[in-house]
Amino acid sequence: MSLNTFGHLFRITTWGESHGPAIGATVDGCPPGVTLEAAMLQQWLDRRKPGTSKFTTQRREADAVEILSGVYEGQTTGTPIQMMIRNTDQRSKDYGEIAEKFRPGHADITYHLKYGIRDPRGGGRSSARETASRVAAGGVAREVLKTLAPGLSITGYMVQMGPHAINRARFDWDQIDRNPFWTPDAAAADLWAQYLDDLRKSGSSVGAVVEVVVRGAPAGLGAPVYGKLDTDLAAAMMSINAVKGVEIGEGMAAAALTGEANADEIRMGPNGPEYSSNHAGGILGGISTGQDIVVRFAVKPTSSILTPRKTVTKSGENTEIVTKGRHDPCVGIRAVPVGEAMAACVILDHLLLHRAQVGDGPRGVIG
Amino acid sequence: MSLNTFGHLFRITTWGESHGPAIGATVDGCPPGVTLEAAMLQQWLDRRKPGTSKFTTQRREADAVEILSGVYEGQTTGTPIQMMIRNTDQRSKDYGEIAEKFRPGHADITYHLKYGIRDPRGGGRSSARETASRVAAGGVAREVLKTLAPGLSITGYMVQMGPHAINRARFDWDQIDRNPFWTPDAAAADLWAQYLDDLRKSGSSVGAVVEVVVRGAPAGLGAPVYGKLDTDLAAAMMSINAVKGVEIGEGMAAAALTGEANADEIRMGPNGPEYSSNHAGGILGGISTGQDIVVRFAVKPTSSILTPRKTVTKSGENTEIVTKGRHDPCVGIRAVPVGEAMAACVILDHLLLHRAQVGDGPRGVIG
Amino acid sequence: MSLNTFGHLFRITTWGESHGPAIGATVDGCPPGVTLEAAMLQQWLDRRKPGTSKFTTQRREADAVEILSGVYEGQTTGTPIQMMIRNTDQRSKDYGEIAEKFRPGHADITYHLKYGIRDPRGGGRSSARETASRVAAGGVAREVLKTLAPGLSITGYMVQMGPHAINRARFDWDQIDRNPFWTPDAAAADLWAQYLDDLRKSGSSVGAVVEVVVRGAPAGLGAPVYGKLDTDLAAAMMSINAVKGVEIGEGMAAAALTGEANADEIRMGPNGPEYSSNHAGGILGGISTGQDIVVRFAVKPTSSILTPRKTVTKSGENTEIVTKGRHDPCVGIRAVPVGEAMAACVILDHLLLHRAQVGDGPRGVIG
Amino acid sequence: MSLNTFGHLFRITTWGESHGPAIGATVDGCPPGVTLEAAMLQQWLDRRKPGTSKFTTQRREADAVEILSGVYEGQTTGTPIQMMIRNTDQRSKDYGEIAEKFRPGHADITYHLKYGIRDPRGGGRSSARETASRVAAGGVAREVLKTLAPGLSITGYMVQMGPHAINRARFDWDQIDRNPFWTPDAAAADLWAQYLDDLRKSGSSVGAVVEVVVRGAPAGLGAPVYGKLDTDLAAAMMSINAVKGVEIGEGMAAAALTGEANADEIRMGPNGPEYSSNHAGGILGGISTGQDIVVRFAVKPTSSILTPRKTVTKSGENTEIVTKGRHDPCVGIRAVPVGEAMAACVILDHLLLHRAQVGDGPRGVIG
Repeated sequence: MSLNTFGHLFRITTWGESHGPAIGATVDGCPPGVTLEAAMLQQWLDRRKPGTSKFTTQRREADAVEILSGVYEGQTTGTPIQMMIRNTDQRSKDYGEIAEKFRPGHADITYHLKYGIRDPRGGGRSSARETASRVAAGGVAREVLKTLAPGLSITGYMVQMGPHAINRARFDWDQIDRNPFWTPDAAAADLWAQYLDDLRKSGSSVGAVVEVVVRGAPAGLGAPVYGKLDTDLAAAMMSINAVKGVEIGEGMAAAALTGEANADEIRMGPNGPEYSSNHAGGILGGISTGQDIVVRFAVKPTSSILTPRKTVTKSGENTEIVTKGRHDPCVGIRAVPVGEAMAACVILDHLLLHRAQVGDGPRGVIG
Repeated sequence: MSLNTFGHLFRITTWGESHGPAIGATVDGCPPGVTLEAAMLQQWLDRRKPGTSKFTTQRREADAVEILSGVYEGQTTGTPIQMMIRNTDQRSKDYGEIAEKFRPGHADITYHLKYGIRDPRGGGRSSARETASRVAAGGVAREVLKTLAPGLSITGYMVQMGPHAINRARFDWDQIDRNPFWTPDAAAADLWAQYLDDLRKSGSSVGAVVEVVVRGAPAGLGAPVYGKLDTDLAAAMMSINAVKGVEIGEGMAAAALTGEANADEIRMGPNGPEYSSNHAGGILGGISTGQDIVVRFAVKPTSSILTPRKTVTKSGENTEIVTKGRHDPCVGIRAVPVGEAMAACVILDHLLLHRAQVGDGPRGVIG
Repeated sequence: MSLNTFGHLFRITTWGESHGPAIGATVDGCPPGVTLEAAMLQQWLDRRKPGTSKFTTQRREADAVEILSGVYEGQTTGTPIQMMIRNTDQRSKDYGEIAEKFRPGHADITYHLKYGIRDPRGGGRSSARETASRVAAGGVAREVLKTLAPGLSITGYMVQMGPHAINRARFDWDQIDRNPFWTPDAAAADLWAQYLDDLRKSGSSVGAVVEVVVRGAPAGLGAPVYGKLDTDLAAAMMSINAVKGVEIGEGMAAAALTGEANADEIRMGPNGPEYSSNHAGGILGGISTGQDIVVRFAVKPTSSILTPRKTVTKSGENTEIVTKGRHDPCVGIRAVPVGEAMAACVILDHLLLHRAQVGDGPRGVIG
Repeated sequence: MSLNTFGHLFRITTWGESHGPAIGATVDGCPPGVTLEAAMLQQWLDRRKPGTSKFTTQRREADAVEILSGVYEGQTTGTPIQMMIRNTDQRSKDYGEIAEKFRPGHADITYHLKYGIRDPRGGGRSSARETASRVAAGGVAREVLKTLAPGLSITGYMVQMGPHAINRARFDWDQIDRNPFWTPDAAAADLWAQYLDDLRKSGSSVGAVVEVVVRGAPAGLGAPVYGKLDTDLAAAMMSINAVKGVEIGEGMAAAALTGEANADEIRMGPNGPEYSSNHAGGILGGISTGQDIVVRFAVKPTSSILTPRKTVTKSGENTEIVTKGRHDPCVGIRAVPVGEAMAACVILDHLLLHRAQVGDGPRGVIG
């Protein structure tokens, strides 16, 4: 993994700034012969696209993806796939203030301290806009997964907004696509709508927790000791803007469990081993068990808020800053398709790694 | 990062199984001219060593590290440093049962499903014994950090055992070395001692939360977008055996905060910007701010317990398993020096990455 | 190094096919604060551009490079630099024949055998057009080198065309820019002009040898044992289309020398050690000595010729093929700026690697 | 590829100095379930071992390899394989002179200039002794290749010693194992024996050319544009001590050919395409054709000779040096098994890469 590249064999390199001419992703290592058209990627980009409800930023971006290379007559050729998304809504607003003042909780100050230069327009490289490139790359991964792991599905959803968590007893997969928060708990969606609307009107923001589940993944993905599946999932999610925590299965709650409570007991089923529970989140020793792979991450609240915050200027003067403009009151909403995309990239990457080292067939059998 | 290697420029590759002839770590990319002797590494290994209190496994291992290469007349030469730790306590016990039955919650089953073969003796490659190699490598990183970042310190400690968290109001750095749990809360240490002793006697086990703090790290470490400092810290910690969750700063709790509450406000101090709080855990946009870097991880309970658990055999029969033998009732204790070691490797790696791209001097100044 | 990426820290990823919408290069790891504009890159692209003399392909491409990211107000920001070159001269010719028949000596057949699919238009990904992306990336490297190693220069030139080598006694640096072959031997240029014109008219092609010299590089670049400077130079040059051999210093001729003849004797000069000769090509043990770094590579003749050659079709029938169209009679000419570009990337990459591991200052001194 | 690691998926990391306690290689990414014992590796190490004839250094090293990890009950487990070779013949000689004076043509001076410190005993890390680790790693690769590509063979041999090349008309595969030079030309062996004996007695040394041929490799190994098979072979060979040039197929001689002469014409044979010649050395566009893969490299003469050479001391004084002691008059002889080992590693690595991206089966078919 280098600075702007993610993955071992299915490698994505993203590039571009929020208000430059374009952003994009280069995918290297894609298997050949996979049907791929821009429209297949667009569906995922449209889920992440700003301005789809009053709960996301009102910036208007078509987020139309163009495939510039690596596809011939509708099929991947095994060569690099370049995907470009032009930036269309670069309002000619004055960035003078945020070019001079650092927003507390934002990457402005660290980019400045590291590089001595930064593109302040719309957050530049640190803008959440970068995640559109991830979604495009994840769309490619999904198409490959269709051919390599036909029964596999990847679904993300919100399980907490601010202090309000969902009720797992109300979990309904079918609800996820029916509310603007991608949540499986319809009652939570109602509550959050009101809560977030109030927050939005007050110019505030709030954090969230997103969960991504991979169903139908084969056992055996991952590897000791640093190339673990959970290591790469953790890196993938933590690399998303604003993420501050990552959990696999029980996550932080595993600390409170005893060995007895944490053990996922095993019994033979008709198609191999079955488990009484899934505290492990589908991963043991860094390798998938064949159960659902469950990863969860927390997104902090957007730092761009209307309430004045104390800060300093580049020239070292104490001042205050208020961030006007179009911002997400809960950036966690749009993080859902991003988390799915990163999971798709990691799973595909590990499928390829596994195929490289061990081959296509099942290796160890039980029974 | 490949399967058994961690790091970009300061790269550690660990090797070896619990009951093979030896385990070890190869460090590549170490700066030359750094004073290094085995004794400097041994002090850290001694902290992780089993059998130092009744709260850790009674396996007796000297864990004596030998430096086989890369050091000449007490100084690193810039070439690979090979560190070997011989396995001395490989009891000639019968591993027949765990060779045939899979321990629930253990990597036995996934190694088998992936590779079709595994070394069952003492957990083989998936044994926590591997972490001794990490501690040795972390010891090298610490010696280099002494020369490259003289004021920097890295300290790990336990903040939760089972359901019992420390009281932050009682946090005392000086307590950390004074109890067998490396905890800054003396009262928690007393409580945990009783709690864990009971648990140990009943043959059970429990999870824990470990926090590692890096003080005195310069601003500017890390890089967008995948080479973030927090990405690498998350990967480093999640790669440790039994870790199920990783947090930076507020971590999962960031989800519940509003933008106002989460903002670390900035004011000019005598030596540059100062912050009113550290919700960010010292990292913004993947780059260090100069504040304390705070990373936290949850360790699940050891899967080896005396209570019978349902499982299956390699040949597919339902059965039960009880894991006798010497095991850690709370493996989180020994994870403290391991977390420190991984943090040391990540910080040094990013210091080298930063020096490569931006040079030695400060780049962006404020004021 | 992954499939389409080159470099350790200064990493270039190229993408695009000859007749797709565009080609380009993503540069990651570029130091910040370096002045960069498209015009600075264009000068190098113009040297490689087809159609500048009758000795190169008559394909007309503006090869205009656009910088899409990583530069703000004329300075690099340290984030990925995306450079795109649109393909403008994609003649709507019939590619039916080369889509069905494999050109002997061309990558058509191996792409087909590997991937089962290939973009046949203009050679697709295997087209020499890919090298324009390298030249753009090399242009970025050159601008960075201006700031990190001010006295350093990189110059490529042809030393052999077909069977006709230059006479080293006539070597004149000033001639290199004065003939269409970038050769330092004016007499050779005259000879080659006649030779190549005849060859071109007959529809044939011929190979060449290109030499690249790096003057003013500091001692200490490179590293044992696999990250050697010569290893990376060899990889860089061998990765260029049509290259079949790479030499450092004496190269293959070193085999014929005795130890006495090969020794570059050392004497103290006013500014440090000086050498009586440079058989080593400026590299000992994989590390630069401070002398001129000399690398040389052979380019095979273009496989696209007018003389019919025996081949087979995709469906397995024996047939013949004649490659009409616009092709370089001696592709070695346009390989000169490509070799320079790759050398620039390697040298910069190793400057950054050295700075990472050892720091900015001189490490070992003599005297 | 990092400093001391080679390979993408089958990764070897070598460590150790000539006169330290041991040297070795860590192999990561090895497929599981491959039969492996130390004796299988020892046979290759014995070919490289010093002191087997009067034509190699008289240093006596058993070069006995121990497998410390990654193998269980005689089978690879898929985890890192650590191979250690103890150094047994570290004569307690005085290294004072070469610690102070730099041998012309040797890495002494560049290690000093880069790192400011070096292990001078026996050349330290720059000693040809490091290549024993490569041979061990190559031995592992060979065992894996037996299972993944059963018909594949890798054979190295000398084709030139000093100015004396073999006569290709006398090429006889069966001769290679019958003379101390691993040459297929028995008459050359006789000539070289006399030539080298004279050279050895006079305390001189000479270079050589080694060729390695891979027979039976499948088509489709390699990848555009930087992960080419020839790129990696070039890097692999150039990374060997003393190598100054690498060629694929026609190599440097390709420059002198016309397109007609260079074309390997294609005809359908009973099992697919056949070629009229192999100028390409089995690689087109970076991907194997299925023909013999032919790589050749030149080794310079050992710099350790009895004739005094001018040099300088660490303190900057002009002086002379004579290198006494045990040295190879033609280090190219022992480079033969090293070249084979590196070829084995590269071929296996690309088999795994291909399996990852494209799968096990043939992809593109002809006919």
